[in-house]
Amino acid sequence: MSYGRVDGSVSKTRVCIFAIVLMSIGICIGILLGYLIGYSVHSESTNESCGAACNEPDDDISKRLMSSMNTANIRHYLSVLTENPHLAGTSADKYTAEYIQSTWLEQGFDSADIHSYDVLLSYPDEDNPNLVQILNDDDTVNYTCSDMEESLRPEDEHPEMVKQFNAYSAAKMAKGDLVYVNYARVSDFDTLESVAPHVNLTGKILIARYGRLFRGNKVLNAQNRGAIGMILYSDPADYGSNDDNAKEYPDDWWLPGTGAQRGNLHVSDYKGDVLTPGYPANSYMVRIDEEDSPLPDIPVQPIGYDDALIFLRELGGDIAPESWQGGLNISYRIGPGFTNPNRSVQMDIHTSRERRLTYNTIGFIRGQVEPDRYVIVGNHHDAWIYGSVDPSSGTASMLEISNAFGLLLKDGWRPRRSIIFCSWGAEEYGLIGSTEWVEEFVKNLGARSIAYLNVDQSVNGDWYMRAKASPLLFQAIFSAAKKVDDPSDPSKSVYDVWLERNPDFLNPVPYVSNLGSGSDFAPFMYRIGVPGADIRYTYSRSLGISSYPAYHSAYETLYLMETYIDPGFKYHLAVSRVWAELTRDIAEAIIIPFNCNDYTSRLVESIDKLKKDYETDMAQHGITFSDIDSAMINFTNAARDLHVRIDGMIKNDAMAIRAVNDQLMNVERAFIDPLGLPDRKFLRHIVFAPSSTNSYSSATFPGIVDAMFKIDEDSDQDGRWKVVEEQMSVAAFTIQSASTTMADYQM
Amino acid sequence: MSYGRVDGSVSKTRVCIFAIVLMSIGICIGILLGYLIGYSVHSESTNESCGAACNEPDDDISKRLMSSMNTANIRHYLSVLTENPHLAGTSADKYTAEYIQSTWLEQGFDSADIHSYDVLLSYPDEDNPNLVQILNDDDTVNYTCSDMEESLRPEDEHPEMVKQFNAYSAAKMAKGDLVYVNYARVSDFDTLESVAPHVNLTGKILIARYGRLFRGNKVLNAQNRGAIGMILYSDPADYGSNDDNAKEYPDDWWLPGTGAQRGNLHVSDYKGDVLTPGYPANSYMVRIDEEDSPLPDIPVQPIGYDDALIFLRELGGDIAPESWQGGLNISYRIGPGFTNPNRSVQMDIHTSRERRLTYNTIGFIRGQVEPDRYVIVGNHHDAWIYGSVDPSSGTASMLEISNAFGLLLKDGWRPRRSIIFCSWGAEEYGLIGSTEWVEEFVKNLGARSIAYLNVDQSVNGDWYMRAKASPLLFQAIFSAAKKVDDPSDPSKSVYDVWLERNPDFLNPVPYVSNLGSGSDFAPFMYRIGVPGADIRYTYSRSLGISSYPAYHSAYETLYLMETYIDPGFKYHLAVSRVWAELTRDIAEAIIIPFNCNDYTSRLVESIDKLKKDYETDMAQHGITFSDIDSAMINFTNAARDLHVRIDGMIKNDAMAIRAVNDQLMNVERAFIDPLGLPDRKFLRHIVFAPSSTNSYSSATFPGIVDAMFKIDEDSDQDGRWKVVEEQMSVAAFTIQSASTTMADYQM
Repeated sequence: MSYGRVDGSVSKTRVCIFAIVLMSIGICIGILLGYLIGYSVHSESTNESCGAACNEPDDDISKRLMSSMNTANIRHYLSVLTENPHLAGTSADKYTAEYIQSTWLEQGFDSADIHSYDVLLSYPDEDNPNLVQILNDDDTVNYTCSDMEESLRPEDEHPEMVKQFNAYSAAKMAKGDLVYVNYARVSDFDTLESVAPHVNLTGKILIARYGRLFRGNKVLNAQNRGAIGMILYSDPADYGSNDDNAKEYPDDWWLPGTGAQRGNLHVSDYKGDVLTPGYPANSYMVRIDEEDSPLPDIPVQPIGYDDALIFLRELGGDIAPESWQGGLNISYRIGPGFTNPNRSVQMDIHTSRERRLTYNTIGFIRGQVEPDRYVIVGNHHDAWIYGSVDPSSGTASMLEISNAFGLLLKDGWRPRRSIIFCSWGAEEYGLIGSTEWVEEFVKNLGARSIAYLNVDQSVNGDWYMRAKASPLLFQAIFSAAKKVDDPSDPSKSVYDVWLERNPDFLNPVPYVSNLGSGSDFAPFMYRIGVPGADIRYTYSRSLGISSYPAYHSAYETLYLMETYIDPGFKYHLAVSRVWAELTRDIAEAIIIPFNCNDYTSRLVESIDKLKKDYETDMAQHGITFSDIDSAMINFTNAARDLHVRIDGMIKNDAMAIRAVNDQLMNVERAFIDPLGLPDRKFLRHIVFAPSSTNSYSSATFPGIVDAMFKIDEDSDQDGRWKVVEEQMSVAAFTIQSASTTMADYQM
Repeated sequence: MSYGRVDGSVSKTRVCIFAIVLMSIGICIGILLGYLIGYSVHSESTNESCGAACNEPDDDISKRLMSSMNTANIRHYLSVLTENPHLAGTSADKYTAEYIQSTWLEQGFDSADIHSYDVLLSYPDEDNPNLVQILNDDDTVNYTCSDMEESLRPEDEHPEMVKQFNAYSAAKMAKGDLVYVNYARVSDFDTLESVAPHVNLTGKILIARYGRLFRGNKVLNAQNRGAIGMILYSDPADYGSNDDNAKEYPDDWWLPGTGAQRGNLHVSDYKGDVLTPGYPANSYMVRIDEEDSPLPDIPVQPIGYDDALIFLRELGGDIAPESWQGGLNISYRIGPGFTNPNRSVQMDIHTSRERRLTYNTIGFIRGQVEPDRYVIVGNHHDAWIYGSVDPSSGTASMLEISNAFGLLLKDGWRPRRSIIFCSWGAEEYGLIGSTEWVEEFVKNLGARSIAYLNVDQSVNGDWYMRAKASPLLFQAIFSAAKKVDDPSDPSKSVYDVWLERNPDFLNPVPYVSNLGSGSDFAPFMYRIGVPGADIRYTYSRSLGISSYPAYHSAYETLYLMETYIDPGFKYHLAVSRVWAELTRDIAEAIIIPFNCNDYTSRLVESIDKLKKDYETDMAQHGITFSDIDSAMINFTNAARDLHVRIDGMIKNDAMAIRAVNDQLMNVERAFIDPLGLPDRKFLRHIVFAPSSTNSYSSATFPGIVDAMFKIDEDSDQDGRWKVVEEQMSVAAFTIQSASTTMADYQM
């Protein structure tokens, strides 16, 4: 090798070597840079080897969802829905289901199908009116109650108006003396026994006021005590104003004297179709015999308070206790019988039971990342007549939120998880449409549903948004309610007003009730452990009424809603926004927004109440809360640790995300015992159930509460205390079992 | 800028520019290369934005797993396990559980814990022997049966040898005439009634031979017919050879005349601890009263055929039917009573029932990608005495496969999913350890378990590997069996020999039986719908024996195993390899290796059998198979479509993989009805169940079969046919429901 001159120049060979070295260094640096760029570009686009499964939801979607909704649309939907009576099992039921189906398809849903079920419904006989009469001693008729509200606005009239009746009443005649039994609660019968022990209810017709208790339980209580018929009426004390100057519909929202509350009388643990307990009412399913069903054996009929006054003012016997005195301007007496001994009461009820089809509409928005995870939104569409509050206010809200989701879909958005919209048939007959659907698709819904978000009535007042929910959903509901302006004061959120007007006295948050029964969340929550919620804007408890006055009457019209309850539909819009945002949040959040610590708190509160009520009594029988307390320590720690783990997660592993979401999904399911509650096998949730004495309200630890109910009066003391002991064990086991679902996966 | 000379040299400036240009080009090329490398390296390692969740299993692991196992280890484990009697509830039970725990920890498991349960067990009384005697007319003892096998090898002796007894026998005395009832099946009692209608069983002591029927059902049949005691013995026809020159233990494997089969008598739908149905036998769980448990009310005791001969040869009455004649060299007669009328039989049984602890060992290997998905491997460790076949051959296999997995773990491998190894206590008392564990962790196991892979006895013969399994597992078992050389002929696989010797006559594959009960897969399969399998190497059916001869006797020793059943432990190794490979495959495969089309086939076969047995009879009552057939069309299509979808999947989306695996996991669960079978609420699988007349064997569509059982003899014809109709509906619904779980996620 030769070297060239060195004075300011290099040889060709050296130049080549130099060039190669330089180029090589350049390439090496480049490779390093390029690798890093390539790696990081790739990582950015795929979220650390995870892809769309790790993408945070887009904040903008929430804003667009809520801003796209408006009151005009809601008013429009409500006007369509309340145009005709649309009772379950009628052509109007089918028409409504089809209207909702076509609406959803137009709005851009992936599918909207109608699922029909062949179920036992009940109707007044068009040709034979239900008669509730006062007879003279020669059996001539002294007085006959009306079976239809007086028409007070010509626009409210309709040829398909549904007469006053109680669904599933026995079609029977009954004649006897009348006894007034207040609300016909167990406690009322206890009172009756103590203040008027001589009154024998066997063979009597009972008159009770509506309120405080599901009407079916009133009838069951009457039937169990030997009554042969029951008349239900709406007392002004429960459905009217305290203000003497208050006006009635159509001049205000108060119930006129001919308004009667329709409603079903099905009391059982299974709800749904009475003939197909536990299974869907499809063509291939065998029906139980109607005689084996839990329907009442006695005739029952609802009347207005104008008619009730005729009966009650003639009643003889002792003056009823102070707390039994209602709002009619008389002294309420107990009976039995009228002051005029020649008069008696006769019921001639022709309400028939018939197998008919009812219709659910099921709309589907397919999730992009997890199509097999469902957030379910539901409301029923069947109404006793127009149902402007119940359920059409809810249906109008639902159609507006489906429209808002549809607009996003049309813009190319798709939720992470699937959203299912459900419009139920025959809810009014005992949660039939929802229960049958849950029964038919129990395996898929049980495995895939994250939450069921119900609105039955969207708006029945303007005081605050009330919510009932599984504790898992409290925070998600709060979070949505904070994002929505309250109609009463735009400077405040729905959450703020709720907190002011209905605070939780134990925690610095608004109060959320436990779910009772009374709407379609029941089969989800109690049968398959899918956490449920139900929200509505409602009136103030200070009104002291049992429900909004026109409930289930012919006066529940669009006019009532837009004139008195929600003029301008602002409250509808607020509820719709909360509902939509709650749905979006659960469908979109990487980690399902459940809070298990709220379950801890609600469990602790419930157990504290049990202790307050029963601890002393139990201790005398050697039963303590120590196992439940010990399980609660585990539950508390497991819930807290799970959330610490979630908070610490680097969300870059799709399987890890799915796994922790599966854990969150299984918390509510962990409270489901396939053996069910004692004597109520279809109610499988060990912590929450509809009360066994009042389907409307909620019981916590129902197995224990029912076992302790009037335990002192049981002749089999050993047997009953054994049941208490068993139920305490089952509660401890179930809490412990639930705590294991939140722990790490190691077994 | 000046240019220097050009003759063979360049100026400094030009060199600099040249260098910069070269370097820049180099960097650019480098960046490009590096980017591509970085991108592709990343893509390779993360499988197109999916990561490890999309990685195919490494083929090499399967080879290393199987090659690392050897016969010497298995022999070693079996020798340790059979050193002492290790009956459930004794210190040896605990010692065995702890030995397994420490072995697993040494082998490298992530954890190994002991879970104990406080359960009702049963033992012979050390101080008061169980007496089965022939009395003279003055009540003096003419003959007393032995309650312990004769010692035939000094090495077999042990101070803790367990006497002959039937667990849960009533501790009672009974005296009466003897009646021989063959196997004590329902059909035997029917035969008895037809050939000897004068024989009244009330107040009699029955003697029955073991075999054909779970012993507990024999006792139940006896008790239901008024018998006051029962003697069970092993007839040479069922536990001996047809060859007159055949030798007995210790000279061959045949049962000597003093060998008696121990075993439990618990018959119920719930198995597990008799005092805690449905819930774990933990400290906090209330126990039912023993009187309310399903345990027998009569004394029962097993004897050897030497003793049985003494009784049977003296028996009077009619000659028993031909099919009742056993292998003793006498004419079997029915009785009642002996030919010498002055003699009677007396049983004085002191077998006691006691609450004791039993111990499960649970070992955990954490999955890398899906730690919350469990493949469960199980075998029980409790034995009546040494249990060299039942269960220690299985335990020895399990410890060798756990060792093989441990070696891989030490090399840095980890399965995709978690593997749980379970060594159960008190299986022999009625699947207690497994049932209690399933009950305690029902929520996690129900949500997370993919399959339960059981080996009770690894080897009890050398003819072929027999398998029982859910149809979902058939292909996975075949696939594993094809990978393992058969010990009888290394040119053939275990699969080949199995196919030759036990073919499925309807399909060109080896036969896989339905799961009956009889081992620990039962609570997984029937309670929570986790597909189960059970494999073993077994003897030829042509031997005509009811089980391997020494079953549950004191002769079930290591010597028996290594001298006669599996000298060299090659069959143990083959079963271990199939078991390990099956486990690895299910734990590793991206898509769970379940085949739903095999479920279709087995359902079709089962329905064809139902039709053959009942279609004509049902048709006369207006009941058809049309709904079931229609549901089967849907199931068939859904299963086929699911596999087409899976085959077409590009496996690059972790959530999509998880979703389809969730579907596969839910197929078996779809057959679980929380309401359970009629009168057997803890058996919840609608298609497969242990037969209600024989816990050992399997029934398909048990609800229908039981409803049709002797239907003509039922006095309530309408009621029974209504049950048939209901069960046909439930079957149609369940098949339809299962088909929906395999469809696309759209609702």
